[in-house]
Amino acid sequence: MKLLEERILKDGVVKDGNVLKVDSFLNHQMDVELFNELGKEFKRRFEGKKIDKILTIEASGIGIACISAQHFGCPVVFAKKADSINIDGETYRTPVVSYTSGKTYTVLVSKKFIQEGEHILLIDDFLANGAEMMGLVEICRQAGAKVEGVGICIEKNFQIGHKQLEDAGIQVEALAVIKSMDNGVIEFE
Amino acid sequence: MKLLEERILKDGVVKDGNVLKVDSFLNHQMDVELFNELGKEFKRRFEGKKIDKILTIEASGIGIACISAQHFGCPVVFAKKADSINIDGETYRTPVVSYTSGKTYTVLVSKKFIQEGEHILLIDDFLANGAEMMGLVEICRQAGAKVEGVGICIEKNFQIGHKQLEDAGIQVEALAVIKSMDNGVIEFE
Repeated sequence: MKLLEERILKDGVVKDGNVLKVDSFLNHQMDVELFNELGKEFKRRFEGKKIDKILTIEASGIGIACISAQHFGCPVVFAKKADSINIDGETYRTPVVSYTSGKTYTVLVSKKFIQEGEHILLIDDFLANGAEMMGLVEICRQAGAKVEGVGICIEKNFQIGHKQLEDAGIQVEALAVIKSMDNGVIEFE
Repeated sequence: MKLLEERILKDGVVKDGNVLKVDSFLNHQMDVELFNELGKEFKRRFEGKKIDKILTIEASGIGIACISAQHFGCPVVFAKKADSINIDGETYRTPVVSYTSGKTYTVLVSKKFIQEGEHILLIDDFLANGAEMMGLVEICRQAGAKVEGVGICIEKNFQIGHKQLEDAGIQVEALAVIKSMDNGVIEFE
């Protein structure tokens, strides 16, 4: 998606270790006008699919998921990253290994909010090694819900996330796909 | 706001320790259609005020802040709750004592995203003892930004948050104000 690629080139910063900083518009400061265009594009890419609910993960997926949900006419559920007093009752949960810290943490969703047979769209800001996204897929599997697709703002396709999800038979739509960031130069697919 | 009060009575659950669970529409599953009505109402209540940016705090404030920002035509910044590799560069930071756990954690915002002289609206899902909100006020003070107001979805006005903010000279607008939840019966102001 041209609009997002241009914005990444304009405001993104490549840091050591293949880290792309887009905190000025995507995941610390959030440009909701841009999010609205990304949400429209997700709707176009998943046109014709029945979506009952969007599932994302805290914290940086929540904004883009909520704005996108307006185009799908459905609610959003966000998975939490640790046990919390804000969740009571039974939960679906799965361990996820953090790409950045190497630590394992638990991702959980209240059983009340993902039902058997529901059609779920997963949305997140980034896809790299895909550990969190595979965690959300696992939670849907536990619930007996159908993952209709994965919508990603920015994908680093030199990491394994995309392939893993496609191997699981899931439609993956990334709005900007980065092929390489060698020497700080961003190349899109 | 009638719409929100009715929804709380319909779907809210009072738990021990004056905890109101609204996780089916506000802070785990999120009803974005309702959020849109709440955002419109925030805009109405702060009509005539110049708002450059909405500041909220992860995670449950992000959804309502983003949808509201569409009505103000401004970006959102969300404060993070701990040090994170997702923040580099200098930050404004302040300690906040959690009402629920009693633990102290650090709230931080990159200095890039709150500028001196900016007009800031603070938005969050809940206001009880106000510790997090006072943390966001402190961050704006450090930045030299002006807090134009605080917009809250649900306030428990038998706790001290509202008074603390008003004593600091800040306009506080809560869309549903709970007076008491004794014996599990919710009474609005």
